[in-house]
Amino acid sequence: MRQNICDAALAIFRRHGFAAVSMRAVAQELGVSTMSTYNYFASKDELFLEVRSRLFRQLSDYLSARAVSEDAEERLEQVCRAYISYGLTHGPEYELLFNAWQFDDYREVVGRFGPERLRDARPWDVMVDCVSGYLTSTASDADPARTAHLVWAQMHGLLALHHAHKLVFGVNVQQLLQDSIPGIFRLVGSDAAR
Amino acid sequence: MRQNICDAALAIFRRHGFAAVSMRAVAQELGVSTMSTYNYFASKDELFLEVRSRLFRQLSDYLSARAVSEDAEERLEQVCRAYISYGLTHGPEYELLFNAWQFDDYREVVGRFGPERLRDARPWDVMVDCVSGYLTSTASDADPARTAHLVWAQMHGLLALHHAHKLVFGVNVQQLLQDSIPGIFRLVGSDAAR
Repeated sequence: MRQNICDAALAIFRRHGFAAVSMRAVAQELGVSTMSTYNYFASKDELFLEVRSRLFRQLSDYLSARAVSEDAEERLEQVCRAYISYGLTHGPEYELLFNAWQFDDYREVVGRFGPERLRDARPWDVMVDCVSGYLTSTASDADPARTAHLVWAQMHGLLALHHAHKLVFGVNVQQLLQDSIPGIFRLVGSDAAR
Repeated sequence: MRQNICDAALAIFRRHGFAAVSMRAVAQELGVSTMSTYNYFASKDELFLEVRSRLFRQLSDYLSARAVSEDAEERLEQVCRAYISYGLTHGPEYELLFNAWQFDDYREVVGRFGPERLRDARPWDVMVDCVSGYLTSTASDADPARTAHLVWAQMHGLLALHHAHKLVFGVNVQQLLQDSIPGIFRLVGSDAAR
């Protein structure tokens, strides 16, 4: 039932956005009473945290299933292509995970649950692992966490600008995403953050 | 009066977000009748477009005033530092300009006014000019527009993740922003997008 409630919340979010998700709307979607959903989640925020946590697990599995090469360079390319591909094909989910500005009450949610509960590090661990493996393979002494942030920012920047309809200067998003892979390898190159 | 109406709209947006901005709220803020604001703007969307256009001009002036070196490398660094600094110090304005996801009716607005009216290219022109000058100075044959997109994505990615409270993995945003300048020079380096 927790799974069903999360699925229903995500379906409503996809169709109508965060504001439309309420315990009542979720109950209606499932054809059950609002009270019964409260047996599983104390509030919309609790429900939202669980949906978010499930999506992080989904993204983590998505990356792990695709970043499989034993060659460190190939694996870094695989994880980057997988992240970009997830961001393109799972627009609403990506938005929910990484564009928190949309939530009027985000600061309040952070305050109530604390940053710890809002941090789900699994996809990040996969990313750092791939970056770290690549740096080791190239005998680079760059800092893996700092370098991984630059890689993440590069991919997130393109995805966020794309989803916000900001890529309007005559360069195709597909072209930019192609450029971004060699760009990432320049970013993590011999002079990377240390 | 148009200026005053735009200032009032921006003040409300800063305090309470986009949803709180209405012709009525703007009139109240200014102590005038709602009808009189309609003499200047036909709708909230028209008003929003003008605010947005003024902010693009502000950002453009901000970049131009800071990217002044006659040395192409120094000028590229100046424009990047200026963009990042604007993004950090003008959070709500940056959000309004570049994070359109927040607007429930954004697609509808785009549909009504057309992408042309939503495209205000001046800050972009400054950015491309700096990137292009640098590429020329290094005798690179990389494409200026495509390379400038990668630079923009790198900066936007960090700013967006920062504003969305996603930089929670133990690396300070100031450190990342410092890393991002040499990162950008690697991005636009000898193998840049062509």
